[in-house]
Amino acid sequence: MLTLNRRMLLSTLAASAVLAGPLRPQSGWAQTNSLPSWNDGPAKASIVDFVARVTAQGGPDFVPVDQRIAAFDNDGTLWCEQPMYVQLAFILDRVKAMVPLHPEWKDTQPFKAVLEGDLRALAASGERGMVELGMATHAGMTTAEFEKIVSDWLATARHPRFKRPYTEIVYQPMLELLAYLRANGFKTFIVSGGGIEFMRPWSEKVYGVPPEQVVGSSIKTRFEMRDSAPVLFRLPQVNFIDDGPGKPVGINEHIGRRAIAAFGNSDGDLEMLQWTTLSGGVRLGLIVHHTDADREYAYDRQSHFGKLDRALDAAALNKWTVVDMKRDWKRIFAFE
Amino acid sequence: MLTLNRRMLLSTLAASAVLAGPLRPQSGWAQTNSLPSWNDGPAKASIVDFVARVTAQGGPDFVPVDQRIAAFDNDGTLWCEQPMYVQLAFILDRVKAMVPLHPEWKDTQPFKAVLEGDLRALAASGERGMVELGMATHAGMTTAEFEKIVSDWLATARHPRFKRPYTEIVYQPMLELLAYLRANGFKTFIVSGGGIEFMRPWSEKVYGVPPEQVVGSSIKTRFEMRDSAPVLFRLPQVNFIDDGPGKPVGINEHIGRRAIAAFGNSDGDLEMLQWTTLSGGVRLGLIVHHTDADREYAYDRQSHFGKLDRALDAAALNKWTVVDMKRDWKRIFAFE
Repeated sequence: MLTLNRRMLLSTLAASAVLAGPLRPQSGWAQTNSLPSWNDGPAKASIVDFVARVTAQGGPDFVPVDQRIAAFDNDGTLWCEQPMYVQLAFILDRVKAMVPLHPEWKDTQPFKAVLEGDLRALAASGERGMVELGMATHAGMTTAEFEKIVSDWLATARHPRFKRPYTEIVYQPMLELLAYLRANGFKTFIVSGGGIEFMRPWSEKVYGVPPEQVVGSSIKTRFEMRDSAPVLFRLPQVNFIDDGPGKPVGINEHIGRRAIAAFGNSDGDLEMLQWTTLSGGVRLGLIVHHTDADREYAYDRQSHFGKLDRALDAAALNKWTVVDMKRDWKRIFAFE
Repeated sequence: MLTLNRRMLLSTLAASAVLAGPLRPQSGWAQTNSLPSWNDGPAKASIVDFVARVTAQGGPDFVPVDQRIAAFDNDGTLWCEQPMYVQLAFILDRVKAMVPLHPEWKDTQPFKAVLEGDLRALAASGERGMVELGMATHAGMTTAEFEKIVSDWLATARHPRFKRPYTEIVYQPMLELLAYLRANGFKTFIVSGGGIEFMRPWSEKVYGVPPEQVVGSSIKTRFEMRDSAPVLFRLPQVNFIDDGPGKPVGINEHIGRRAIAAFGNSDGDLEMLQWTTLSGGVRLGLIVHHTDADREYAYDRQSHFGKLDRALDAAALNKWTVVDMKRDWKRIFAFE
């Protein structure tokens, strides 16, 4: 028994190995009541069971803290991706904001389609058109300038249906799940097809995920000295697409080891879920199935954004947890 | 005042926010005696002064824990890079080990030069030859297979002068510095021109740096399902060169924010040091200058490996700390 005040407590811990890494939670520490927005049922039970097993010290499925890596998709898994990806809404707004500097866009596709709200022409521009729009709005500035553009946009942009900032259109049950995993010694990563620099300005504030734990798609950057001040300039060249089979590649590149739990909602997450769960040992694969048109959206196999088809079949095959939003989530958004 | 035993202590901390992130050290907690292998002098003083300033809560230079990012070069900064880069020794050994599977190498440059120990012919093969050797030895297997090859090699390979495993030819003062920074709330990253997958198998054990905090050069990988088992297959294509102006790019890609302290030893670290220190605020840039031929090696402006020329001039200009190994390090290796 020790008698301690707060300062002594810190000194004691500092002198031990504790400071060098996350504190090891005791066995059986997993708490079910930290998932208050989850209804009792198979989805919640599978999460709690998984966490109990991998944190049970001395148990057959125990996983040391440093290997407790959890990977979360973002669009449709942590925040809403309907009626379109948030980053696409950003792109469309940016084209409109930038047109005074690019008057030629009024007569050039795919910009013309954006400016005229002609979604048919926009779709007709295909992937090439989307890349062109992406580069025009994401490249040609420094990383610091782009971060400011994203932050400024998020401060004023509103979701068309819920009339709130996009950073509030995040799933309350998933925020609780992130915190629950972290409280059980997990390091939580975002592994998204979205732009890495589009997520980092707000991922820590909104999800508690620091920039160094965000993996995403990226364009190339170039180091430059400008009047003795170093900058990174964003170039109009794709560096990496963190989607589908790219997700295991991104996880390996950024994290350097496999996750033991992965969370997604679409075919873009299929390979990440395979890479995570088919590696021996107790693993958790989870798919958010959007089944609630009243409170959010209902979509899967035929959707334009977040199409869930092959991954839904794979979920049955591999016994991944499928969250039925309507059934499993007591509350969807914090503002409800 | 609280009366606590160890179990209660863990529960109390678990219930607080502490688990979610590194423990916040108290102001003025920096301890000089945790750098026992450093002689007193300007280099050690600059480190201790920097840490004291950025950790002084309420002080003008205070930096919150989540922004205390430190970036360390590896070759020549954390471990010995003479008489050649360790990864080059690995490549040469691998060519010799693999030649039974590639009998044609006996008559093909640059492999012939390696097999015959003809360093002149090897040098004549230039960068193209080195890339060819790198791809032949680093690609064509899964990431798991490569990890095993590296680990097996390190278990038996010995430094030609010190006759010990390469993972023991690490600088004791730098190990102490890594631990000292971590004890003061820093997250320590390796940012090396070396292969990211070459370092990760041992970085945690040797440096206390987990795989997700290692940034390095890489080749491309491809996700494949092999008999229902997912693998990442290493392809003979360069993905990223984390050297020189690539280091700030790699830091931005992997960490997503600037470091506030950077440690290097060569011109390959110049841009990382600029990117880190020329950003406003109190920053620490440090260069390890190899000045001790008796205990290690002495080299700088004309060296084949770890050339230190432009960065030494920049150190004077930007007031970076230059460690004189002979003067500043009481001990160089743990085994001394």
